[in-house]
Amino acid sequence: MGSPVDPASTPVSDRTRVRREPERGVYDRGTIDAVLDAAFVCHLAFVADGQPFAVPTLHARVGDVVYVHGSAASRALRTVHAAASACLTVTLLDGVVLARSVFEHTVNYRSVMLLGTLRVVEDPAGKLAALEAFTDRLLPGRWSEVRPPTRQELAATSILALAIHEASAKIRSGPPGDGTSPDATLPVWAGEMPLVTAWGTPVADPELQPGIPLPDSVRRLLAEPPP
Amino acid sequence: MGSPVDPASTPVSDRTRVRREPERGVYDRGTIDAVLDAAFVCHLAFVADGQPFAVPTLHARVGDVVYVHGSAASRALRTVHAAASACLTVTLLDGVVLARSVFEHTVNYRSVMLLGTLRVVEDPAGKLAALEAFTDRLLPGRWSEVRPPTRQELAATSILALAIHEASAKIRSGPPGDGTSPDATLPVWAGEMPLVTAWGTPVADPELQPGIPLPDSVRRLLAEPPP
Repeated sequence: MGSPVDPASTPVSDRTRVRREPERGVYDRGTIDAVLDAAFVCHLAFVADGQPFAVPTLHARVGDVVYVHGSAASRALRTVHAAASACLTVTLLDGVVLARSVFEHTVNYRSVMLLGTLRVVEDPAGKLAALEAFTDRLLPGRWSEVRPPTRQELAATSILALAIHEASAKIRSGPPGDGTSPDATLPVWAGEMPLVTAWGTPVADPELQPGIPLPDSVRRLLAEPPP
Repeated sequence: MGSPVDPASTPVSDRTRVRREPERGVYDRGTIDAVLDAAFVCHLAFVADGQPFAVPTLHARVGDVVYVHGSAASRALRTVHAAASACLTVTLLDGVVLARSVFEHTVNYRSVMLLGTLRVVEDPAGKLAALEAFTDRLLPGRWSEVRPPTRQELAATSILALAIHEASAKIRSGPPGDGTSPDATLPVWAGEMPLVTAWGTPVADPELQPGIPLPDSVRRLLAEPPP
């Protein structure tokens, strides 16, 4: 848990402070980075023509910046030149929390919210670094196994960047909250149902040329614990 | 795939039409409902004090309406009396798509986006129906196993509703797209790495009174295929 005097903590603004159930709010960079790095997909919120959108897109963190694919959020890209505000949210669902009453049912989760202004990554070196981060986020080691981007592909790729500055994490874990309430004596089972994400069996492209084995990246992944 | 003349299809507006990769856009209600119903968590986008937010929250569909917990989106609740626009997005990640080039790497997913105006559910009967939908969404059959909400709990619960009117789904499935491109002859493995979500082993509340067995709802869940 972060503390306001932790030198590694992220500034807490009135907008990122966790208002409801403040005991669930954490602000230290280690926690924020770990949640960002554990998720494949984020939701990017922005306003276009007066309408708020939440668009799912791949993301990858490199140091103090989170990159997203601008092509997936093409509406965001059209608004970004106006230095418009955005919100990038990552949510990992860890389980369902079963309480003795309807009211106390909830879920265990890890979530991070970043607020800020999106920046378009223009320079080819920056785009390449972001693409490497995306690719190795999807599958560690994949970058060095595949054909690198051509100049044309790089030009066709739009990348947006959001600095990790105004940020907060919100985490719930553990058993239901009614174990020491008057409901605790009800004859109702209570506890957690964990949700686990795992890799399934690799499916080769039907067009795959014969004689090409599973790559090292996939072999390593299957030997590891679930993501 | 939906068609514009399908009587069960949802009106496609200029805002919900899938612009990028339009072949991935589907608009029929059956598909939209199936994606909404398969996810536990949505991201709700709205604007508060000029700042867009994407807030994760539990949701449940009942007919033509999706309910969300207003307490989790307390900022949204404060803006809703102004009949503010919102966007509700659900995203399910089905796998990583490994291509022969960096550029063609992608993910398989199902996503639904709803646009509209949030409504506060005020009447106790409507709140009760929404809570039943939430509870049985988390765990089918759970509603009848636990203590129902008291009048005070119902009053303390805020529920928001969004009609399924302006909606679209976006789905990608199947192998990478470069199996018939010039890259197909590269000696690089290509295919899909499916991501599978499954229930872990139930964890009883440490405060659970002795002698309370696993409920029927949990037993049924563990006997079923993953969510």
